[in-house]
Amino acid sequence: MGLIGGGPGSFIGPVHRIAAELDGEIALVAGAFSRDAAKSEQAGRGYGIDPSRAYPSVEAMLAAEAQREDGIQFVTIASPNFHHLPAARAAIAAGIAVMSDKPMTATLAEARELAASLDATPVPYGLTYTYSGYPLVREMRERIAAGAIGPVRKVVVEYNQGWLAGAGEGKQAEWRLDPARSGEGGCIADIGVHAFHLAEFVTGLTVNRINADLGTVVPGRLLDDDCQMFLRFEGGARGLLMASQVMTGEGNDLALRIYGENGGYRWSQENPNRLEWLRGDGGMEIVRAGDPGLSEVARRGTRLPGGHPEGLLESLANLYRDFAMELRGQSGSLVPGAGDGLRGMALVAAAVAASRDERGWVDFTVC
Amino acid sequence: MGLIGGGPGSFIGPVHRIAAELDGEIALVAGAFSRDAAKSEQAGRGYGIDPSRAYPSVEAMLAAEAQREDGIQFVTIASPNFHHLPAARAAIAAGIAVMSDKPMTATLAEARELAASLDATPVPYGLTYTYSGYPLVREMRERIAAGAIGPVRKVVVEYNQGWLAGAGEGKQAEWRLDPARSGEGGCIADIGVHAFHLAEFVTGLTVNRINADLGTVVPGRLLDDDCQMFLRFEGGARGLLMASQVMTGEGNDLALRIYGENGGYRWSQENPNRLEWLRGDGGMEIVRAGDPGLSEVARRGTRLPGGHPEGLLESLANLYRDFAMELRGQSGSLVPGAGDGLRGMALVAAAVAASRDERGWVDFTVC
Amino acid sequence: MGLIGGGPGSFIGPVHRIAAELDGEIALVAGAFSRDAAKSEQAGRGYGIDPSRAYPSVEAMLAAEAQREDGIQFVTIASPNFHHLPAARAAIAAGIAVMSDKPMTATLAEARELAASLDATPVPYGLTYTYSGYPLVREMRERIAAGAIGPVRKVVVEYNQGWLAGAGEGKQAEWRLDPARSGEGGCIADIGVHAFHLAEFVTGLTVNRINADLGTVVPGRLLDDDCQMFLRFEGGARGLLMASQVMTGEGNDLALRIYGENGGYRWSQENPNRLEWLRGDGGMEIVRAGDPGLSEVARRGTRLPGGHPEGLLESLANLYRDFAMELRGQSGSLVPGAGDGLRGMALVAAAVAASRDERGWVDFTVC
Amino acid sequence: MGLIGGGPGSFIGPVHRIAAELDGEIALVAGAFSRDAAKSEQAGRGYGIDPSRAYPSVEAMLAAEAQREDGIQFVTIASPNFHHLPAARAAIAAGIAVMSDKPMTATLAEARELAASLDATPVPYGLTYTYSGYPLVREMRERIAAGAIGPVRKVVVEYNQGWLAGAGEGKQAEWRLDPARSGEGGCIADIGVHAFHLAEFVTGLTVNRINADLGTVVPGRLLDDDCQMFLRFEGGARGLLMASQVMTGEGNDLALRIYGENGGYRWSQENPNRLEWLRGDGGMEIVRAGDPGLSEVARRGTRLPGGHPEGLLESLANLYRDFAMELRGQSGSLVPGAGDGLRGMALVAAAVAASRDERGWVDFTVC
Repeated sequence: MGLIGGGPGSFIGPVHRIAAELDGEIALVAGAFSRDAAKSEQAGRGYGIDPSRAYPSVEAMLAAEAQREDGIQFVTIASPNFHHLPAARAAIAAGIAVMSDKPMTATLAEARELAASLDATPVPYGLTYTYSGYPLVREMRERIAAGAIGPVRKVVVEYNQGWLAGAGEGKQAEWRLDPARSGEGGCIADIGVHAFHLAEFVTGLTVNRINADLGTVVPGRLLDDDCQMFLRFEGGARGLLMASQVMTGEGNDLALRIYGENGGYRWSQENPNRLEWLRGDGGMEIVRAGDPGLSEVARRGTRLPGGHPEGLLESLANLYRDFAMELRGQSGSLVPGAGDGLRGMALVAAAVAASRDERGWVDFTVC
Repeated sequence: MGLIGGGPGSFIGPVHRIAAELDGEIALVAGAFSRDAAKSEQAGRGYGIDPSRAYPSVEAMLAAEAQREDGIQFVTIASPNFHHLPAARAAIAAGIAVMSDKPMTATLAEARELAASLDATPVPYGLTYTYSGYPLVREMRERIAAGAIGPVRKVVVEYNQGWLAGAGEGKQAEWRLDPARSGEGGCIADIGVHAFHLAEFVTGLTVNRINADLGTVVPGRLLDDDCQMFLRFEGGARGLLMASQVMTGEGNDLALRIYGENGGYRWSQENPNRLEWLRGDGGMEIVRAGDPGLSEVARRGTRLPGGHPEGLLESLANLYRDFAMELRGQSGSLVPGAGDGLRGMALVAAAVAASRDERGWVDFTVC
Repeated sequence: MGLIGGGPGSFIGPVHRIAAELDGEIALVAGAFSRDAAKSEQAGRGYGIDPSRAYPSVEAMLAAEAQREDGIQFVTIASPNFHHLPAARAAIAAGIAVMSDKPMTATLAEARELAASLDATPVPYGLTYTYSGYPLVREMRERIAAGAIGPVRKVVVEYNQGWLAGAGEGKQAEWRLDPARSGEGGCIADIGVHAFHLAEFVTGLTVNRINADLGTVVPGRLLDDDCQMFLRFEGGARGLLMASQVMTGEGNDLALRIYGENGGYRWSQENPNRLEWLRGDGGMEIVRAGDPGLSEVARRGTRLPGGHPEGLLESLANLYRDFAMELRGQSGSLVPGAGDGLRGMALVAAAVAASRDERGWVDFTVC
Repeated sequence: MGLIGGGPGSFIGPVHRIAAELDGEIALVAGAFSRDAAKSEQAGRGYGIDPSRAYPSVEAMLAAEAQREDGIQFVTIASPNFHHLPAARAAIAAGIAVMSDKPMTATLAEARELAASLDATPVPYGLTYTYSGYPLVREMRERIAAGAIGPVRKVVVEYNQGWLAGAGEGKQAEWRLDPARSGEGGCIADIGVHAFHLAEFVTGLTVNRINADLGTVVPGRLLDDDCQMFLRFEGGARGLLMASQVMTGEGNDLALRIYGENGGYRWSQENPNRLEWLRGDGGMEIVRAGDPGLSEVARRGTRLPGGHPEGLLESLANLYRDFAMELRGQSGSLVPGAGDGLRGMALVAAAVAASRDERGWVDFTVC
């Protein structure tokens, strides 16, 4: 694996390294960590890789690695949004598989271009909607697909953060608040798409109408920092999506509640090894990671017995393990792909536009 | 106190009796428990009152009690919504104070009529927005008013129930699902107004625009059973209101989250003796009922030392205690009044209309 | 009902009044609230009773009430421990039923004397082990008796408070820290007996050996303020009892965990409407007050539908309701009686003695 | 790093690999995974190491690796207890550092021998008391050392499991229930020592007296499966230790509560990113992993921002990171060492003996 981004001071770079290597199937061996050759080399030393494989550009990495027998088999894109498309385009052109941070690109037009590239030159392409790797998220999905709570009627998904309630200083905040690097969406593109993907992933249903209310709470900010959205799913299920980065004091409160004719589920990322099941008969069960009787897909994503907490790194590692399966040509991967990425970018575009003009309900289609 | 409604089999009648009498300031001594004289008498015996004071109608009660030296000083209206206006009108005409179940009336037109009656013949009038009596709800209000979290930016209020996810049988469900007895709103009138009142009560802010999405999930039902609403408060604070009676498995999950520039609060009715305070400096405190340092109004509403749970009956009792203060002409009562009731009915009317026509954002004014 | 104790400034007096009257079956009509006639009268006014029925002594109350047609049917003893025996003795001698605060008396010898009085002159006698009135506590008891978790193997009961971690000022602390008024036990007599009763009540098992470690943490104190005890139940089940008043910051954390061959239960008083059931098959359920399918005894002790919290006052009211059943000669009461009281006092005596001499294991029998 | 144990089907082997490699400072490159050469090789392939470095014995590994320039720098011992001493002895003799699973050895005599070996031939020696690596555990330790809650008065540590409530089948159960492989302690040696270490580690205090009650709940079992123990710390602080493997339905419920003169802490392993701080002034704060203002040692052990859960693997990785520091000769490591191991083994021996004879209180000294 070759990492794009993740230069000195990066938070997300080491996260990708840990998660990718966690199960011993993947190794970080190369990287275009920074456009600055010295910085890229410095980062490479930090990751403990062969210094000659720390490159100053994606192109240089792809070219050099192609010459090696033990060259990289895929790249992971961990650079800011505006860089996702060029990086992915280069890898695809080189026939190299891509694992990319969300959102897919900075704009919907870019996402369409990337999807077209993949149509033209198919390589495995995965998107790190990280939270979809949690075992109990996948368990919910399996159970809902099996009809455990009956047809889905109502979905509430929320992603509450508070770290941008103030002015928003630091490297992480800076590029996210800058439309030139982040794209047309702020909070909606940074975390709203996570929530949106999770809702569709777990229910197996597709949203086809939205009524969006994106706002900018902190004065002077150019992008949205607080989002609320009504959703309507195919078949009529009703939904609500909240995402905010100005809920002062909130950490990373991604939570999902789904109700069917015959029961409901509640799950929260900050306490991810516990799933609340509201049974149709009025009873309530706590499903715990590691419980006997979980589905195969949940068991596969759990490394420890019940009561031994696993967290976000392990969830992301589950995506990498699935991606490794894809690379080996095996089936069963649940890693989100270009279709999911395109839907996310379409959501950003639709929500931003509908919100700005206070359009109320609009159809949501991705073509 | 004379009770209107609360006949044999009633759930809410005994609740009012317990709460009203809890602090020893009020006694249930008369009632028009049912239009059926025999049933009213039967109920009276159940409440342990003098049988001669169990009347077959509000009018009969008001007339007879007016003749007694120890006649009732106020009535509590606990009958279905369509009966709120006639009952209140009769009491007001008799110069008798009124404590009424929410919503104020069945329709906005009725609410306006009732408000006009009160303008013409002022008597103390209270509305049992029961949850506003919880000590920690009032504590939040005090703290926010004192600037503890800075100007309010975002409010999320939700009221999730599941008891109408099925067909909805039983006395409680029946009249609520019948527009003739319930009025123009279903879930929005039954519990949405609670959530709405709580949001305004605690923040001290007034909603002036809404974008409502009311729906009917269970086929064949004539009124809404699931509500989602964007709110905009004066000054620009953003809000979200959820209320549902079809979230299968939920009990009575009324919860409030409020975020200001400098902190946030989270409170949940199902665990009411605990308030989460997200401090502006990144810390988090748990404020517990009975803690030293709570405001006078919270201490006044707490009968037991910390760690000894109080619940809904005590919360309602706090409203009755405040109402007794009003009757004695004392200041300091926080019981919601006709203005709050009118706002609730206006919300029902506006949300139902805006939702039906998918109007998106509409102004919300009460005149 | 006539109240003994509960004079001006009392916390527990009003608690008894509220709980006794909650269900409309009992009314506080008389009292010997204080030995000071003026204070007793003052308290009587506070309770809203006929001033002529506020007496300066238990004897005066019993004599005067016996002359009335509507005289009291029972007394509630809410005075400090050393006064429990004389008050109960007088009532029993007058043939009046007794509801008494725990512990039964100040010493084991006194408890034996009281039990002998009851043997000689049987009247209904109840002890307010308040926490045994919670619906889910009773539910656990029913389920365990029905074999839901198989034979009990392990019991952990704890009662953690922190209010005496400091010097212990105020009326409540003062008499409890004074052996002359409190008796031979400090924390063990004040709250340890609650925990002990709960363990025996819920399991239906009797403790027959103990190994006690009572200590005094705050320097200068004459009685124990921190207790830990190993228990052995008939049939061999193992147990652990903790009770402390010096766990700085704890409120009223009474909690019970019981494990059988085939499952377990966890319950905590600070969140009393929720019972965790660890099923034998590895699953976990949350039993909620108000759930369908609860036992008759739990339903009887619940006034509100699921999701509407009830608390300590309602739990104590359940004891009063049961006591009213006893007074009417009905069966089914679960109010603890003299046998339970005697066991509690025997525990205090045995634990204090065994602890002081570091005896390790000792037999625990009550005769 | 060379792994001893962790052969095919092992649970703990992969856990060590993941944790050791997590931060990119250590790599698993060799192993004596099994005494069966074929199985060792099979395991080696599973770990993805050079097949020639999968050895059939510790001795073979040590000898061969000593010949390599890139030979292992330390071994990790993950074999059953009875094998800890011979494996460690061999490594020490070869001058190779040792990271060992707890308990240190199977018996106290063995532990003394091992400690003597280390005295004679000092090499870095670490014990994986895994839970001491959690950031908030270390935070508690720092804060207590800094006097945040005043002198410690009371400690409650518990480690509740239920997986041996039944007959105890499977590889994990088998050797643990066999005195020949497990040693003289059952539950006390398997998890009791974790709890004991945590109590001493976090308080900084040493236990000097115990009163132990170890029992065997499941019939036919040869070792203890349920432990309760009173502790007395130097300076007089009182403690309680529970450890059980027969609390049906419990997962891995290790929890610690510590109370000082001026506050208290509560922490639970199943929700490890949250520390409850009961302040001396009656307030309560939730300290969250990733919060600003945590100590340097807690920040160092946290890889993700607040709200992104980390778990057991990361906690163990913190021990490995510290151990790597020791290997590099850096200071600051908090990895438990031989002294801690010896104390644990002394506890096992003392508790087993004192319990068997019902000795009550005994002095606890380790020499």
